[in-house]
Amino acid sequence: HQYFPGILSVTHCMEEVNGVPKLMDLLDEPVPGVGTYEDFNTIDWVREKSKDRDRHREITSKSKESTWALVNSVCDAFSGWLLMLLIGLMSGALAGGIDISAHWMTDLKEGVCLNGFWFNHEHCCWTSNETTFQERDKCPQWKSWAELIIGATEGPFAYIMNYLMYVCWALLFSFLAVTLVRAFAPYACGSGIPEIKTILSGFIIRGYLGKWTLVIKTITLVLAVSSGLSLGKEGPLVHVACCCGNILCHLFTKYRKNEAKRREVLSAAAAVGVSVAFGAPIGGVLFSLEEVSYYFPLKTLWRSFFAALVAAFTLRSINPFGNSRLVLFYVEFHTPWHLLELVPFILLGIFGGIWGAFFIRANIAWCRRRKTTWLGHYPVLEVLVVTAVTAVVAFPNSYTRTSTSELISELFNDCGLLDSSKLCNYDNANVTKSSNELPDRPAGDDVYTAMWQLSLALVFKMLITVVTFGMKVPSGLFIPSMAVGAIAGRLLGIGMEQLAYYHHDWVIFRGWCSPGADCITPGLYAMVGAAACLGGVTRMTVSLVVIMFELTGGLEYIVPLMAAAMTSKWVADAIGREGIYEAHIRLNGYPFLEAKEEFSHKTLAMDVMRPRRSDPPLSVLTQNGMTVEDVETMITDTTYSGFPVVVSHESQRLVGFVLRRDLTISIDNARQRQDGIVSTSRVFFTEYTPPQPPNSPPPLKLRGIMDLSPFTVTDHTAMDIVVDIFRKLGLRQCLITHNGRLLGIITKKDILKHVAQIANRDPDSILFN
Amino acid sequence: HQYFPGILSVTHCMEEVNGVPKLMDLLDEPVPGVGTYEDFNTIDWVREKSKDRDRHREITSKSKESTWALVNSVCDAFSGWLLMLLIGLMSGALAGGIDISAHWMTDLKEGVCLNGFWFNHEHCCWTSNETTFQERDKCPQWKSWAELIIGATEGPFAYIMNYLMYVCWALLFSFLAVTLVRAFAPYACGSGIPEIKTILSGFIIRGYLGKWTLVIKTITLVLAVSSGLSLGKEGPLVHVACCCGNILCHLFTKYRKNEAKRREVLSAAAAVGVSVAFGAPIGGVLFSLEEVSYYFPLKTLWRSFFAALVAAFTLRSINPFGNSRLVLFYVEFHTPWHLLELVPFILLGIFGGIWGAFFIRANIAWCRRRKTTWLGHYPVLEVLVVTAVTAVVAFPNSYTRTSTSELISELFNDCGLLDSSKLCNYDNANVTKSSNELPDRPAGDDVYTAMWQLSLALVFKMLITVVTFGMKVPSGLFIPSMAVGAIAGRLLGIGMEQLAYYHHDWVIFRGWCSPGADCITPGLYAMVGAAACLGGVTRMTVSLVVIMFELTGGLEYIVPLMAAAMTSKWVADAIGREGIYEAHIRLNGYPFLEAKEEFSHKTLAMDVMRPRRSDPPLSVLTQNGMTVEDVETMITDTTYSGFPVVVSHESQRLVGFVLRRDLTISIDNARQRQDGIVSTSRVFFTEYTPPQPPNSPPPLKLRGIMDLSPFTVTDHTAMDIVVDIFRKLGLRQCLITHNGRLLGIITKKDILKHVAQIANRDPDSILFN
Repeated sequence: HQYFPGILSVTHCMEEVNGVPKLMDLLDEPVPGVGTYEDFNTIDWVREKSKDRDRHREITSKSKESTWALVNSVCDAFSGWLLMLLIGLMSGALAGGIDISAHWMTDLKEGVCLNGFWFNHEHCCWTSNETTFQERDKCPQWKSWAELIIGATEGPFAYIMNYLMYVCWALLFSFLAVTLVRAFAPYACGSGIPEIKTILSGFIIRGYLGKWTLVIKTITLVLAVSSGLSLGKEGPLVHVACCCGNILCHLFTKYRKNEAKRREVLSAAAAVGVSVAFGAPIGGVLFSLEEVSYYFPLKTLWRSFFAALVAAFTLRSINPFGNSRLVLFYVEFHTPWHLLELVPFILLGIFGGIWGAFFIRANIAWCRRRKTTWLGHYPVLEVLVVTAVTAVVAFPNSYTRTSTSELISELFNDCGLLDSSKLCNYDNANVTKSSNELPDRPAGDDVYTAMWQLSLALVFKMLITVVTFGMKVPSGLFIPSMAVGAIAGRLLGIGMEQLAYYHHDWVIFRGWCSPGADCITPGLYAMVGAAACLGGVTRMTVSLVVIMFELTGGLEYIVPLMAAAMTSKWVADAIGREGIYEAHIRLNGYPFLEAKEEFSHKTLAMDVMRPRRSDPPLSVLTQNGMTVEDVETMITDTTYSGFPVVVSHESQRLVGFVLRRDLTISIDNARQRQDGIVSTSRVFFTEYTPPQPPNSPPPLKLRGIMDLSPFTVTDHTAMDIVVDIFRKLGLRQCLITHNGRLLGIITKKDILKHVAQIANRDPDSILFN
Repeated sequence: HQYFPGILSVTHCMEEVNGVPKLMDLLDEPVPGVGTYEDFNTIDWVREKSKDRDRHREITSKSKESTWALVNSVCDAFSGWLLMLLIGLMSGALAGGIDISAHWMTDLKEGVCLNGFWFNHEHCCWTSNETTFQERDKCPQWKSWAELIIGATEGPFAYIMNYLMYVCWALLFSFLAVTLVRAFAPYACGSGIPEIKTILSGFIIRGYLGKWTLVIKTITLVLAVSSGLSLGKEGPLVHVACCCGNILCHLFTKYRKNEAKRREVLSAAAAVGVSVAFGAPIGGVLFSLEEVSYYFPLKTLWRSFFAALVAAFTLRSINPFGNSRLVLFYVEFHTPWHLLELVPFILLGIFGGIWGAFFIRANIAWCRRRKTTWLGHYPVLEVLVVTAVTAVVAFPNSYTRTSTSELISELFNDCGLLDSSKLCNYDNANVTKSSNELPDRPAGDDVYTAMWQLSLALVFKMLITVVTFGMKVPSGLFIPSMAVGAIAGRLLGIGMEQLAYYHHDWVIFRGWCSPGADCITPGLYAMVGAAACLGGVTRMTVSLVVIMFELTGGLEYIVPLMAAAMTSKWVADAIGREGIYEAHIRLNGYPFLEAKEEFSHKTLAMDVMRPRRSDPPLSVLTQNGMTVEDVETMITDTTYSGFPVVVSHESQRLVGFVLRRDLTISIDNARQRQDGIVSTSRVFFTEYTPPQPPNSPPPLKLRGIMDLSPFTVTDHTAMDIVVDIFRKLGLRQCLITHNGRLLGIITKKDILKHVAQIANRDPDSILFN
């Protein structure tokens, strides 16, 4: 140790002479509760990381002493990997279960299997021997409800019967879902990604990732998806994976006790969620990195990747779709695309961007209405009405009747010769059966019918999703957005294909699309459209393209996807800056400091700090001049969550910072346990306590709970730098000085209010600290 | 604007009353040179980013005034994308050129094409009509040197002739390479990745990414690769791409004038480099993120991805290998792997880790010897000797004679029935030609010969690479490391295969490897081995796996690759913490603050700060008490690169921080241009200059060059937090206060010295500021 000769070294040396590091007295035996956080508060990343480093140091230094401690230290080092393995296994298994149950229950709306009610339509017919390849979906064991109840398969009565049963099941499922959510786990509703983003940025919402939320969200997600509502399971799967991560954290002290370390695990869990939702481990990691995470060190990158892979392989071994793939809509295209096709791809991007931006506006307006008007008081009724409308409108149209993933799967699909769907009803007269490549062919009548139905489905999906997302059931947005884009893309694709077939002498087609060639793949257009709409809504970029790349498995198609995703993001950003998750975060008033947007105003720290000119001066503690009563009065008189400690009121020279919670707990604890602490006891934050007069009460030493290294910036610091510091270091508050004197304080909430004010929004919309 | 009533508001209000923002006086008309950096110095990220935000704000506010300004602002917004496009195109084209030339010159060592000397062996035979598929490498137009000079193709004389020519060409190429590097661009040697890492972390090395370096590195890279030395082109390609990025930055003011913005571009360029080197755009982006970059905002992620894709597509359209792929060693495997095979894969990981760690030690020891002994004085001789040894030893062994990429390509290859290479000489007696899958077969004699040759090649490569990496020619390490791993892997793979063939009744093979099945793919083992060795040397993890994934194109093989890469990293880390690039950075004494390793010692800021107890007190300026002469004396008496400004020597209350360079330039400029500034002029750093006595010289106002928001931490701040702040905010220095008084300063160099001291290394090995 070497010291600078100055005011410090005197007291410091004195400490050394005594031989006892006084400074550590209180830190070594912490009062229970000191250093923890209250619900709906922001954590201090610096303190948490510091705590973890202390723990790590202790284990490392102990490990040299005994073999047992060494084993312990190795276990500690590998506990992170073990945790990742467990999260991967658990999330993969849960995702598999959700997929299988949702598949079965979706089919249950249409009929039941006589071999066993637990078979879904496809499984039912697999076990049957009587099916041929062409009609693998039709087998005698599978009975529609009309057949089962009134014994008729055709005719208006059967149709009405099926219709009725479809609507009834849908209502039953959604009723169960909303009731379960309301009764047991209110946090289980919605997609969960906005809240997870906020939690990862350092906010505390107790119970949001708890076991009840996990159980109820898993069950109600299946119910909500099966009810046929226009929602997906991808967002909620991220929430489910994060719940798994959080619950499994409790197995390891390292992660249970440290909010920062736990958030590293949750970042990895978010990657796992996307990995199982889309079968895209790399895309999942990039999603977590790009979209969800706040603090993402390289160690987390590597662990997330491991966890995402474990989850993907668990899901694959469960094989929920029976296609050896992780998702229903895995595709492989074979035809290359032409440079000129970039024009329609960019058009799809523009469509996606416009739709995304308007969807966000409409959805936020609707959610705000739900928050402020009578609508919010009847969540069950709302869900039932929306379900009823969805089911009634969806049933007559075969493209809305099936589950949305199946619809997407059909739209992505490249028509083969044997495909029996209406979308593949082409005129195959000129096709030589032997050739591997299918040339462009004229569309049959069924294709035109399908196009009409798809157009209606498009309008319906676009409208109903606005009111569905945000209801009190688990609801993801990925699948509905993708469906909208896929429909639009497929329609454009078929249009282009027919145009190319009938007009291959046009200039734009000449040279690359000769008659009898396979120029246009409508499935690719559907995929590009899906990426565009998803991009417009979520503003994802790299992760979106990588997820889509993992779905197709060919580097070939990255360029179209990227062109669409880029256009979509630019167009959507031009209309409204926020993605859907940021918009919902703002709607709920969470204290989330957006890392993507640059703070671009030329304000200084002194313009944002508290107290303002008209306010009373900053409440500060002095390091040695106050009694217990003074401190208690200050605590009751103010609501601030922390107080700076200064040398004296006159000098305003900063010593440290004390949190209100720690102060209250410590004083209460001292009054109860420590002999002689009364209201007139003096409170000392100094290292060395001066000898007290003989008959005065013993002093209360509180240096142990004081943060000796509070962050300070000068009043002339530009706010963009302050915001940067808050983001990068994860601060809760920062003190403002001028020429070495304490002037004021800026908290995260102050910054968020300032940002809101600049954007002409209500600064009081920021609700939490 | 709202102010806190205090010392500040008086002066601040006065400013407002005057109506002129005095504060900005000097910033608006900057003295040329103020705000720039000297060579071999560290930049201040906060200041650079702040400058860019100011520029951006100005453009945004102007854009509302006129249409022209609006167009300008849109152009500015898109200039980043345009730059990425250009970098992608240029790097892709250069990489294609390098591939083609290196291929041609490598073949030139063995012979020449009669149809035109500019054809390489393969092209020469393509143009010939007389070749059949089996013998596509043999055609009359291609003449070996022996055939051309002495007219013989067989016999000892011809062999000796070819041997001689091979060595001569190798010597010629390497001599040219080393001479060109020494004569024109000394920075063109080595891999460049350690320096690029340092530059990206905020260091300035002028000319390292300049046009001469680009030209010479491109040419000498081709020469060095063709000379047959044990080196690769992958690392240098990253350097070449970064040169392109840096040079193209000059086209755009936004990037030319801002060191921080330029580093964003360079991060993207590093991704481009890997993208063209391995044909792996996603892997390239992750490489840049994981391995090279320091500051990698999300915007850069997206742009890097774009640039990497453009480069990959440019390279693909050049098609340098004639296989429609970006790399020579693209493979597709078809057989799944079995869980039990993880054991040999992990063994390969252990091998890779051990080799990687020992390679780093040996290479660093050799490089240190080169730096300190006579060896360093004869770089040309060193290169020639190593080339001669390489060529003489390599020629007799066909696996070392070919280029290393071809060797890797052959080792990765899954043997087909038609493959004529010795490694594929299996006994095909029991194979039915019709089946698609080739079962495991007994190895023929040639396979055993090949295994012997490969073992020798393995030993040779392991030894020669140690002395090759670090010579004064461009040299990458990826390919030699991969070659070592691929040889080891292939040998193990063949061993496993034969074991499984002859002993499929053993317990370990029973159940999954029946006779006549294709159980083991030796090519996959080679790939896993390559990943393991590369991981051991570079300690890459996710990016390595993703690069390999993009080479194979199947999610299937990620698990073996990851198992090997993880084991390799753990084993190597257990032997020595540093990867090869960090080791070289430390060897060269660059000021690089490693972001991956946690600072784990319990020291405080006061233990690290200057001045130490025995040193003279900190040199400070006072805000209003000094004359020009005082300041100049302080500048000449000290060598510090900056000085804190305090209110007064007595109070030591901090006002701001001034950089030495800015101070010198401003005073010189004022003395030359500003009337009446003499040695007795008073220097003011205050906002408001008090009226001077009538006949005193005019004051010199320097508030404009002062950083009003210097970073400060208290002396009790733990060093781990200080290191974190330095890393995350990219600081150059940080001031230390105690109870509001200035105590000392910590610079990046102090931290690096402290880290070196803790690790028991020489703190003076850190050379630069």
